[in-house]
Amino acid sequence: MRALVYHGPGSKEWEEVPDPLVEADTDAVVRVDTVTICGTDLHILKGDVPAVTDGRILGHEAVGTVTAVGPSVASVKPGDRVLVSCITACGRCRFCRDGSYGQCLGGGGWILGHRIDGTQAEYVRVPFADNSTYAVPAGVSDEEVLMLADILPTGYEVGVLNGTVRPGDTVAIVGAGPIGLAAAVGARLHSPSHVVAIDMAGGRLDLAKQFGADVTVNNREDDPVARILDLTGGLGADVAIEAVGVPETFELCTRLVRPGGHVANVGVHGRAATLHLEDLWIRNVTITTGLVDTYSTPTLLRLVSARQLDSGRFVTHRFDLDHILDAYDVFSRAGETGALKVAISR
Amino acid sequence: MRALVYHGPGSKEWEEVPDPLVEADTDAVVRVDTVTICGTDLHILKGDVPAVTDGRILGHEAVGTVTAVGPSVASVKPGDRVLVSCITACGRCRFCRDGSYGQCLGGGGWILGHRIDGTQAEYVRVPFADNSTYAVPAGVSDEEVLMLADILPTGYEVGVLNGTVRPGDTVAIVGAGPIGLAAAVGARLHSPSHVVAIDMAGGRLDLAKQFGADVTVNNREDDPVARILDLTGGLGADVAIEAVGVPETFELCTRLVRPGGHVANVGVHGRAATLHLEDLWIRNVTITTGLVDTYSTPTLLRLVSARQLDSGRFVTHRFDLDHILDAYDVFSRAGETGALKVAISR
Repeated sequence: MRALVYHGPGSKEWEEVPDPLVEADTDAVVRVDTVTICGTDLHILKGDVPAVTDGRILGHEAVGTVTAVGPSVASVKPGDRVLVSCITACGRCRFCRDGSYGQCLGGGGWILGHRIDGTQAEYVRVPFADNSTYAVPAGVSDEEVLMLADILPTGYEVGVLNGTVRPGDTVAIVGAGPIGLAAAVGARLHSPSHVVAIDMAGGRLDLAKQFGADVTVNNREDDPVARILDLTGGLGADVAIEAVGVPETFELCTRLVRPGGHVANVGVHGRAATLHLEDLWIRNVTITTGLVDTYSTPTLLRLVSARQLDSGRFVTHRFDLDHILDAYDVFSRAGETGALKVAISR
Repeated sequence: MRALVYHGPGSKEWEEVPDPLVEADTDAVVRVDTVTICGTDLHILKGDVPAVTDGRILGHEAVGTVTAVGPSVASVKPGDRVLVSCITACGRCRFCRDGSYGQCLGGGGWILGHRIDGTQAEYVRVPFADNSTYAVPAGVSDEEVLMLADILPTGYEVGVLNGTVRPGDTVAIVGAGPIGLAAAVGARLHSPSHVVAIDMAGGRLDLAKQFGADVTVNNREDDPVARILDLTGGLGADVAIEAVGVPETFELCTRLVRPGGHVANVGVHGRAATLHLEDLWIRNVTITTGLVDTYSTPTLLRLVSARQLDSGRFVTHRFDLDHILDAYDVFSRAGETGALKVAISR
């Protein structure tokens, strides 16, 4: 088959590789029907994720059709259309039994396109298939489901649910990229009074208005702390969601949040931040971090199926699998191309 | 009357001042029967709390007898024996209605011995008396109740409850001073498997064993991270409670905690800490900060009354009110004197 193979920092090829096979009793092999590219894949290509080594097939998000299963797999069978989640879960370890699938101790967690070969290929081997795939409901398109492989559960669990967004809240979201917009869409499910999107790119703020933000602040031009204080009677945001991944945006969140409020960090960070405990110790603030667990994926699938959540609109560009290198090019130049998420189909 | 008056950094006097009076309809005046000194009072005397100005009577913890009440006060009357809490609460603002009394927007919060005159005096005016005093149950001593004015609810709410200590947990407490020991006592109420006290003073660690710690680590001699990993099958503590108030101990807590665990900051900080988001972003960690709200005070009073909680043993030294300066001397040299909490009675 053909696959997108990482060959060290800055180097990738769409090339011929051996077909994946069922290796363990709990494996499935899935034919990839539609796949996407994540910001994390770009990080890997910069060499930021050293666990990814030369020869690794990238990708951790896909929708596909099961072609083979190991003898222990009970919940999917060849011919089934499934979502392949970014999180693989053994389903048996302490953390899996607690719903913390992202922290799986049994060989799962985020492994696809990281520690084992991933989804940017014609076929992918999915370990622990019973707990790592989801049946796709009828009437839901590949593109709609694909957004539930990573960004929607990540924005929802790590942003909205960790941040405990409640009806009437003012939610500040710092960063209006795909994850920030996914958090905005997820926040709307909990009837906040305001969803405030904060970004330095005007184009992204325009998009944020379509994805659930009712207030936008360009923090290149405007002071977001003053705007949030003004909006909340001087108190601050009930929830501040960090969706960028640099120290400055995290620190901004700790200044946006009200006493008793929540800062939910969603961004992937490469550097330490400064935590101003001399101000925060007395303010009853809760700060959460997290890799997605995907425990919300069944709920989100029901919401998409019931048309309560429009996940398909994240897709701005479409390619076929043989043109995945073009998709990388468009996605990596999102600032110019306006790409949000790309859908790459066989 | 006589009172302990702050006269700027390094200066205090036990001196004659006017008696306090009922000023607002919701005030009570309380004759102070027993009062204590908090580590925060020592911070004030160093000049660390600039909101405290020359002429302020210090102290925010007392047990006493009501001598006068304003016309709106309904739940206490002259002659009643009451606990005067470190937190004053209007009971009416958004935060009070939410149980966040420490963040009171209606003129309360931590105000005694801070923004208004405090309890280290023969009499004290207590605003919002209905929500800021608690009737003392019969059969409970002044000293037992006095520990519920600040340290026990602080250790319990900001450490144990914010940290969500649960049965079977391994709880690491960094700092075995009065607040750390209060957290240990509170943690035991929730049946953890291990309470690990970490401190650099051997004497405090010996005390910690009497207050509920089953494991002690002297981090001058031993690596607490290695000890906790060893105790938890390599995972880390379920809950790490910071009870010192310096960046190093906070940062230690973030290294002690397991994926999915909680860091509860109780310490009062004067400097920023480094938050290693490059490690923590993926570990599903929850970090909380907080000033005590005292919502747990009625529960703790019931536990003391029912002899499920021995609060009196925090008191190591006793003085009469005219010797409060000696009490300050003994408390401020706790390292030499072995003082934990002092009780100063009329």
